[in-house]
Amino acid sequence: MSNTIGNHLRLTTFGESHGAAVGGILDGCPAGIAVDEQLIANEMERRHDGGYATSRREPDVVEILSGTYQGLTLGTPIAFIVRNSDTRSEDYSELAGLYRPGHADFTYDRRYGLRDPRGGGRASGRETAARVAAGAIAKMILNQSGISVKATVAESATPSDNDSCGGIVECTVSGLKAGYGNPVFDKLNARLAAAAMSIPSAIGFEMGAGFEAARMTGSQYRDLWGDGFTTQTNHCGGIQGGISNGMPIVFRVAFHPPVTINQPTVCIDRDGKLHSWIPQGRHDRCHIDRTVVVVEAMAALTVADYIV
Amino acid sequence: MSNTIGNHLRLTTFGESHGAAVGGILDGCPAGIAVDEQLIANEMERRHDGGYATSRREPDVVEILSGTYQGLTLGTPIAFIVRNSDTRSEDYSELAGLYRPGHADFTYDRRYGLRDPRGGGRASGRETAARVAAGAIAKMILNQSGISVKATVAESATPSDNDSCGGIVECTVSGLKAGYGNPVFDKLNARLAAAAMSIPSAIGFEMGAGFEAARMTGSQYRDLWGDGFTTQTNHCGGIQGGISNGMPIVFRVAFHPPVTINQPTVCIDRDGKLHSWIPQGRHDRCHIDRTVVVVEAMAALTVADYIV
Amino acid sequence: MSNTIGNHLRLTTFGESHGAAVGGILDGCPAGIAVDEQLIANEMERRHDGGYATSRREPDVVEILSGTYQGLTLGTPIAFIVRNSDTRSEDYSELAGLYRPGHADFTYDRRYGLRDPRGGGRASGRETAARVAAGAIAKMILNQSGISVKATVAESATPSDNDSCGGIVECTVSGLKAGYGNPVFDKLNARLAAAAMSIPSAIGFEMGAGFEAARMTGSQYRDLWGDGFTTQTNHCGGIQGGISNGMPIVFRVAFHPPVTINQPTVCIDRDGKLHSWIPQGRHDRCHIDRTVVVVEAMAALTVADYIV
Amino acid sequence: MSNTIGNHLRLTTFGESHGAAVGGILDGCPAGIAVDEQLIANEMERRHDGGYATSRREPDVVEILSGTYQGLTLGTPIAFIVRNSDTRSEDYSELAGLYRPGHADFTYDRRYGLRDPRGGGRASGRETAARVAAGAIAKMILNQSGISVKATVAESATPSDNDSCGGIVECTVSGLKAGYGNPVFDKLNARLAAAAMSIPSAIGFEMGAGFEAARMTGSQYRDLWGDGFTTQTNHCGGIQGGISNGMPIVFRVAFHPPVTINQPTVCIDRDGKLHSWIPQGRHDRCHIDRTVVVVEAMAALTVADYIV
Repeated sequence: MSNTIGNHLRLTTFGESHGAAVGGILDGCPAGIAVDEQLIANEMERRHDGGYATSRREPDVVEILSGTYQGLTLGTPIAFIVRNSDTRSEDYSELAGLYRPGHADFTYDRRYGLRDPRGGGRASGRETAARVAAGAIAKMILNQSGISVKATVAESATPSDNDSCGGIVECTVSGLKAGYGNPVFDKLNARLAAAAMSIPSAIGFEMGAGFEAARMTGSQYRDLWGDGFTTQTNHCGGIQGGISNGMPIVFRVAFHPPVTINQPTVCIDRDGKLHSWIPQGRHDRCHIDRTVVVVEAMAALTVADYIV
Repeated sequence: MSNTIGNHLRLTTFGESHGAAVGGILDGCPAGIAVDEQLIANEMERRHDGGYATSRREPDVVEILSGTYQGLTLGTPIAFIVRNSDTRSEDYSELAGLYRPGHADFTYDRRYGLRDPRGGGRASGRETAARVAAGAIAKMILNQSGISVKATVAESATPSDNDSCGGIVECTVSGLKAGYGNPVFDKLNARLAAAAMSIPSAIGFEMGAGFEAARMTGSQYRDLWGDGFTTQTNHCGGIQGGISNGMPIVFRVAFHPPVTINQPTVCIDRDGKLHSWIPQGRHDRCHIDRTVVVVEAMAALTVADYIV
Repeated sequence: MSNTIGNHLRLTTFGESHGAAVGGILDGCPAGIAVDEQLIANEMERRHDGGYATSRREPDVVEILSGTYQGLTLGTPIAFIVRNSDTRSEDYSELAGLYRPGHADFTYDRRYGLRDPRGGGRASGRETAARVAAGAIAKMILNQSGISVKATVAESATPSDNDSCGGIVECTVSGLKAGYGNPVFDKLNARLAAAAMSIPSAIGFEMGAGFEAARMTGSQYRDLWGDGFTTQTNHCGGIQGGISNGMPIVFRVAFHPPVTINQPTVCIDRDGKLHSWIPQGRHDRCHIDRTVVVVEAMAALTVADYIV
Repeated sequence: MSNTIGNHLRLTTFGESHGAAVGGILDGCPAGIAVDEQLIANEMERRHDGGYATSRREPDVVEILSGTYQGLTLGTPIAFIVRNSDTRSEDYSELAGLYRPGHADFTYDRRYGLRDPRGGGRASGRETAARVAAGAIAKMILNQSGISVKATVAESATPSDNDSCGGIVECTVSGLKAGYGNPVFDKLNARLAAAAMSIPSAIGFEMGAGFEAARMTGSQYRDLWGDGFTTQTNHCGGIQGGISNGMPIVFRVAFHPPVTINQPTVCIDRDGKLHSWIPQGRHDRCHIDRTVVVVEAMAALTVADYIV
């Protein structure tokens, strides 16, 4: 189930960074949803651009292969692909036998016994293109129910010249009525946590008051009733017992900085021997801006899974 | 799938706080594991006791109904029940028509249209008894592979007399070799996040350096190679690309304080009318000590799911 | 997922023939269904009795442990157990090291490395008690939508004195409107086939005209339109493209005869050595009558899974 | 889960008959399998040709988009597409508002509220191209374990000029050792039944002696032990208690004849009004020969799911 997320609205993705394409199949989308191809293109553009993004230029055109007819979804699986147009595999040849520090080179090799060394393979941030394309469709589903998803950069830094920085993204889901979610293991907050933490570089997740809530007293924390089933505060982030309470769903995701920077470092080979390495080519110094739309996509897919 | 967790080692739990019993079925446990009933009893005791726990006294005896023969697991489902011996439903009669602040009374009612008002029903912390019993079996599986799980209270406070407090639990999984986990959505860290955030009162989750990692530079954060495929630091918490790297798995879970305290407050009824309410009876002022074993249980179940 | 069936209405069962109990957890049952305990008792009685059943007499009392309150389902998991009251494990001691012909003794041992030799363990027909109890609840769900399930013995024989016989059960689901089912792999007929073939001793499954349809021409087979979206014939058994067409769902399940009969035979031991064996004690000569309610239960659970 | 099959080796397919492409994602394939593209092409050719197949000529070229590197599988999802090159949508315009007899036009419309009327859309036999491509990869996995899958036409007829015929396919899986399968619901035979019955036009399934077993006595049916854990007969079809016993797995699948033939018939419209209709264009008179490789593919996928 590794590459699938969702119970009712199920996204399965595929693709290596420098293979032929990345993409996915979104199964369980309700029939009759108008497919807004411009929205998909806009979301792909939001993912692509960003303050300190790499110079790799790919158009990231999403081709839909199935599941729609005359502009409407059919209820059948929506397959989509994004061709990898700018793949220069020769850039990566020297790394084929080395494990970079902080990357998944070593862990993939231990897991599978072999790997695609070009650009991180399956473990590249390139796979988020499929998340964003599917997330755009999830937003169309949510829009029909008056639900919107909006994330912003809550915290970040300016990366120094030869270094990188991470940051925190805050996401709000508005318009979700009370009563969505499930008890015990399939809690809406648990599912949001898994969805967010599955994003490359995610390292922390919190709902509402989050880690600060651990330092509050009960009298400070508890969300007292206001008017019309609203609450006066929203420390819990809109979810109680795993089920939405009608207040906005609010969560934050922390991302660690990119680990490959323009500074000499040391790789290790299969035999455990260390090799000095000077990273070359393009490397994001900060991709927090590009991550915002990915967080939105995962939130949209997660919430839509309870709606369809 | 609401009450089931795991892909290969699958736990399905049941039970309302004041119903006949809580319990579960653990499916997918390997055959031939020696069942250490004393360990189960000890773990139940760890969950039961705690610094500021309620006075509700239940023996919490776990009865195993299936899946074992002559002290060994059979590979078939292990069903277990914990009878609810100390159920005083009259305590809760006045709350049948009211939604307490900060509890799941309202959200369950919106989700299902009716609920068991006695002691929180399915949304009670009572359901963690089933997690702990199953977690004990998961630990027996892990022990066979030399893997141990140990959590501690990383941060807490002393609750004031009529108030409550939360805290932070840190958990370490030691002995897990490199190569466990999966790419993209089924990442080990994503699964740990979901497992932890499904615990009642959990409000935040972070791996390794966590939220602090968002404020580091890449040169500070990146875990450089040390000897023998270890890393000099463990900011990532032992997981790269969703797959274990052989370093200890380290994560923290933040818990908000109990929301029902011995202070007057206001409930709301089905018609949206507010009612003053003075909580009576037993209420934990702090259950962070009792939560430690629950965190361990969820970690053990999650990791064992990749081992079996 | 071995012991779980269903996507939305999910039944997980447990229990060895001579362990403490058999039972299960039914998750996903809608809230607000009136639980008819008499219907459950009646269904258990239908399973228990039968023309040539064994003399093993157990009351088969179903105890519901969770998921109901004041006679209504809560939407939370319904756990139920049936104690094994008449377990005489000494009857089976001689068989502990032997594999009987036609039974699962050998295959379980190869699968798990060990097994519970008492009465077939998990592979006993005893496990169908959990199917029938859960099937009774599924029927309550279906009844609310005007759907009924009725099976009969379509074909059987009179077993000779020291021999056994099988038979064919035909099942009809009435009242299911058009539009239930799913494309491709999750077809209603595919799911019915899996559910039926999972019953102990099931050896064949067919929809509508079944194997005879393979010998018809298209002009004979095709179900021509009648009035009001009905069809003049129902050779397809009420399903097209995996989705119900509003006609009755009709299928048949073939069951092979019981393989243990009162005649001398030969067992094999772990070392491959043959041993003569004269079966003693109770053995069904024909359990086709008892199987009818099990077929109904599996049909009810399968159809209800698409309804909830 | 509609368009996904398998627990460990999971195939998700997509595609309408006259959309851009059909294809799928095969997740869970072990790493390091040599991809034999010629075998895939051969299997596609076996599916494409057949005694009385339609004149629709498509090359059915399978393009693999991910999951392989330098000719080996990576353990990551293998996505593949087959472009629909010969789509003449104008052929189907007159049918947009009509439901043909015996097809899924009506049921899809009831299920989804709209449909792609071109060539049956998702309900076309065209979707089996994805099954066959994935099945070819499953065969590569099985080959590594010495397991082979071979199906033949067991029974068929010669279609008369303006009529059609069905038939029966028998499939044998050789080389599967004892001990594969699972108890109760996830039985190997139950999973084979679901896989086979999900093939378009499948109407019956039986293991080993099948429906004839229902007419045998126990002394005739029971498979007595032979040498070396073999059995003297194989009436059960190689599976006991849902688990392989080391004998060949043998099953048969019955297929009804194609329902659209070159004879006048009557369609129904959305308002329930009948319209006479003379089918034109290409229609298979018998596709039993083409179905053989599809049955093999489903068997290979099902068995491989227990192997990976």
